[in-house]
Amino acid sequence: MSKSKLPVLEIFGPTFQGEGMVIGQKTMFVRTAGCDYSCSWCDSAFTWDGSAKEDIRMLTPEEVVDELDQCAPDNYQHVTISGGNPALLASVGPLCAILRDRGIKTALETQGSRWQDWFLNIDDLTISPKPPSSLMKPSLSMLDDIVEKLRNGGRLQHTSLKVVVFNEEDFQFAKSIHHRYPDLAFYLQTGNEDTGESQETGRLVEKLLDRYHQLVERTMEDNEMTAVHVLPQLHTLVWGNQRGV
Amino acid sequence: MSKSKLPVLEIFGPTFQGEGMVIGQKTMFVRTAGCDYSCSWCDSAFTWDGSAKEDIRMLTPEEVVDELDQCAPDNYQHVTISGGNPALLASVGPLCAILRDRGIKTALETQGSRWQDWFLNIDDLTISPKPPSSLMKPSLSMLDDIVEKLRNGGRLQHTSLKVVVFNEEDFQFAKSIHHRYPDLAFYLQTGNEDTGESQETGRLVEKLLDRYHQLVERTMEDNEMTAVHVLPQLHTLVWGNQRGV
Ligand code: SF4
Ligand code: SF4
Repeated sequence: MSKSKLPVLEIFGPTFQGEGMVIGQKTMFVRTAGCDYSCSWCDSAFTWDGSAKEDIRMLTPEEVVDELDQCAPDNYQHVTISGGNPALLASVGPLCAILRDRGIKTALETQGSRWQDWFLNIDDLTISPKPPSSLMKPSLSMLDDIVEKLRNGGRLQHTSLKVVVFNEEDFQFAKSIHHRYPDLAFYLQTGNEDTGESQETGRLVEKLLDRYHQLVERTMEDNEMTAVHVLPQLHTLVWGNQRGV
Repeated sequence: MSKSKLPVLEIFGPTFQGEGMVIGQKTMFVRTAGCDYSCSWCDSAFTWDGSAKEDIRMLTPEEVVDELDQCAPDNYQHVTISGGNPALLASVGPLCAILRDRGIKTALETQGSRWQDWFLNIDDLTISPKPPSSLMKPSLSMLDDIVEKLRNGGRLQHTSLKVVVFNEEDFQFAKSIHHRYPDLAFYLQTGNEDTGESQETGRLVEKLLDRYHQLVERTMEDNEMTAVHVLPQLHTLVWGNQRGV
């Protein structure tokens, strides 16, 4: 695997960002393959479980940008890089550099298991440590290290923490993360248990809004969670679990 | 009417911010009475049409803060001041000053018909010029003046523009506003035609998501609207048109 190429699974857009610090933002998506985690409820398991192995293409950063241009000629100023865990890939750095030279902003989400120097160049960086229900065990010392480097680089304004919450144990985990890094913008997000594409959308919307409502109530009653945001996955409300929208 | 008191209609929370630049934020709400506009689709007409006249209380800024403390003891770090048009009230300034001294952030929304020096102290200021469907005629020279003052005060990072869109004419208006002030964060928001409290929530959600979907599609196809956000009213999805939540 050449170091200068990226394993790409999807390039699509323009669409809107459905989550977190830039929710609603018009953006393109580049989805890379590969993850060092295997969360129990991963909604993009196809990026790492082998099921979409044939769809992975090794592309240079320039080829990725060409394809973005073909998807949306002169119609984007923001690109979201997601995965999998794109922080595994050194070659995301050159991709972001090309985009930045063209005045295009970048967003990236990672679980915080790995540092890359190019984190310092991401406009909207979301660190999303995985809660107990994922069955993963995030390394807090790695998180400390990442946040410290971002702080030293003057990047805290461009960074947020996001924790997905499925149950009370997850909520307590979210709280501990928020209190560990109180100067970082903090987002709670409802979990989506129904990640199959078959789910009927009307019923899914009802369940998702209900779960969002519950997370809102839980957060509002908790005076140790005040400087926080609570958000649903907006794209799932609109498009259900469809891919590529 | 004493200059140091505010006409207050509602104080409630904590709840989440349902719109715009701080969507999802845990916040308290203070709703002031009175507006210099009368938008055709105003969703808080009770603040100015006389229907809630008996509920208006004249409160000092200190009394407002006392009531916030009673509503949510030690459980808030963010207060949203809405209306009506709170920019009509000089006494919002002292209220924000008290909150700021306590380390509490403030958000405020106004249509941009009036300047107040205390705009410079608002953490999340939303200017929401009203589109043609409102039947109002916003003054662009007043908007220019407001944006210029915020720019000179170094406040553009704390400011956003938001335009509610009901139809294509509104969309074109939104575009002209975005292009007039390209360095300001820009939010498109779906209009809600069904502002009566009686509407059945399930049906309302379907309509709102459908309208949001349409606004997303319209925005995605338009290469003159790239650096923008598109958002629904999240609180209406969760709570319908209920007041005080
Ligand atoms: S870190 Fe993200 S991509 Fe990786 S397994 Fe977990 S949810 Fe899936
Ligand atoms: S400016 Fe706002 S409060 Fe005033 S009439 Fe219009 S929508 Fe209602």
